[in-house]
Amino acid sequence: MHLSKTLADVGEANVIQEITAAAPSNLNGDDAAVLFPAAPNSRTVASTDTMVEGRHFTRTWSTPAEIGQKAIVANFADIEAMGARPTAALLAVIAPKNTPLALVRGIAEGIASRCAHYQAELVGGDVSAGSELVITVTAIGSLGGSLPPLTLDAARVSQKVVAHGKIGHSAAGFALLQRFGRSLPTQYEDLWPLIDAHCAPWIQPGRGVIARSTGATAMTDNSDGLIHDVGMLAKRSGVRIDLHKDALQPDPLLQAAGAVLDTDPWEWVLSGGEDHTLIATTHKDAPSGFRVIGDVHRGEGITVDGGPAAYSASWESF
Amino acid sequence: MHLSKTLADVGEANVIQEITAAAPSNLNGDDAAVLFPAAPNSRTVASTDTMVEGRHFTRTWSTPAEIGQKAIVANFADIEAMGARPTAALLAVIAPKNTPLALVRGIAEGIASRCAHYQAELVGGDVSAGSELVITVTAIGSLGGSLPPLTLDAARVSQKVVAHGKIGHSAAGFALLQRFGRSLPTQYEDLWPLIDAHCAPWIQPGRGVIARSTGATAMTDNSDGLIHDVGMLAKRSGVRIDLHKDALQPDPLLQAAGAVLDTDPWEWVLSGGEDHTLIATTHKDAPSGFRVIGDVHRGEGITVDGGPAAYSASWESF
Repeated sequence: MHLSKTLADVGEANVIQEITAAAPSNLNGDDAAVLFPAAPNSRTVASTDTMVEGRHFTRTWSTPAEIGQKAIVANFADIEAMGARPTAALLAVIAPKNTPLALVRGIAEGIASRCAHYQAELVGGDVSAGSELVITVTAIGSLGGSLPPLTLDAARVSQKVVAHGKIGHSAAGFALLQRFGRSLPTQYEDLWPLIDAHCAPWIQPGRGVIARSTGATAMTDNSDGLIHDVGMLAKRSGVRIDLHKDALQPDPLLQAAGAVLDTDPWEWVLSGGEDHTLIATTHKDAPSGFRVIGDVHRGEGITVDGGPAAYSASWESF
Repeated sequence: MHLSKTLADVGEANVIQEITAAAPSNLNGDDAAVLFPAAPNSRTVASTDTMVEGRHFTRTWSTPAEIGQKAIVANFADIEAMGARPTAALLAVIAPKNTPLALVRGIAEGIASRCAHYQAELVGGDVSAGSELVITVTAIGSLGGSLPPLTLDAARVSQKVVAHGKIGHSAAGFALLQRFGRSLPTQYEDLWPLIDAHCAPWIQPGRGVIARSTGATAMTDNSDGLIHDVGMLAKRSGVRIDLHKDALQPDPLLQAAGAVLDTDPWEWVLSGGEDHTLIATTHKDAPSGFRVIGDVHRGEGITVDGGPAAYSASWESF
């Protein structure tokens, strides 16, 4: 029994039609999309991120909409991490010919819903048959004004390190999915937000722009693991960053998941990635929505309360 | 015997290092690339195109550099087709773990060489393991001044249809490769330019900008087949386009390949794609580098000297 038509059943033109119906934009539909500048002489910011089924997501654990949401947030976090505002996304989908059309529609709906939070649009894309499902999103953003972008090499000694967003929740959600799949036992249902954090991460739009406009100089997002990502910031800036253990204490959700899975939740905090939490450095007070999690010193590397980090693994693509 | 290290041997950081060494840009290396506007208040143009091994290219027929060159030209043609200037590219590579590092380096070298012709740079990207080789390029361009972009819906009755670039050469080259592979018999070596046109297409940079500045209103590129692509232009503009048989006559190379392969070369001209030839409509004389190949009439559809086209097949992704 066929519950849904496949991509091969309907053909390329209808697949594209399904995507643009779910995520419409007047800017889409020509050889290329033309974006109007958000402000006079604003600079354009661009980043691309690719997700392969079985490596970055699985349909067993994520709904199609969640796959689309994750793709947008992962990409837009990179735009925000420059202090810029995401304005548009382009989507390249590769999928086996027998893929249900409903899957592609669901992904596009997830993309549209997350784009809407950012007042951004899906403005272009491409589709092709292939042996596995691959979702590649390119994000475009706008950097207004004359302040420099927030780069990895601009952390300065005596600055505070500030963060916006949860840290470790995505990794804890992944660990729960590995144990229980989506069949989380009823007595653990309070832990659902961790699974949501993994399958459909959420960062409040606009925090990167706020940080840039209130004195931050360096910024990145927590995609490959906190120690790894902050370590990259320290290395590129030629400084040592000390993280404050108190500020990073696993919250009750992480503690509860740690107890259920017999895992030290500090592992998720320090080496889990994919939270896409924004981490910045500033001489000023923490911008609104951010909290202080460390400070910047002369030297090199990462310390936690002055000592070595307990966990520092990170994502490796190959 | 291992002639080359694999991606898994060297790991993600070294794969990225290999790409950025072959295609360097000061704009690369942070969470996202920040592009300066090419001119005050210029608009940003963006397009993405994905190529799957075995569907859009094969290592049997194309060198790694040619794969990179093809990816850039296919994408930059979409930017040119808006009348804009390509300025930057982003690259997402998916490859099996046992892929030789030299393959990725070669692709990056091909990208760098074609980008150089456009004074553009590879400014960002992503890499991941996967089961098949996939190259996704996103092209960014700049549309200066206040003239509208060259869109599919702006062909007007009584305009000329003009083209810049070869038509049918890529399809003829593909047919030669299907018959002979890269082992073209010595007596046919004059036909090599057709194979080059397929493996590493070439369009003179800047023709899209010239067309826009000299009165063209609509433009597309010949990627899926001439009748298909011009047909899309006619449909979106609500006009009939008549192509001139004389102007499209297969050139001596196409005639020779047709004789060798016992194929009517008109099939390559009318339904072959991937030449990325720019096709525009204008009330003015053909811009420099362009030639007249037809004209625009009231009505709908495509005709050749007033009659139906002999061939009209096009590319279908699924």
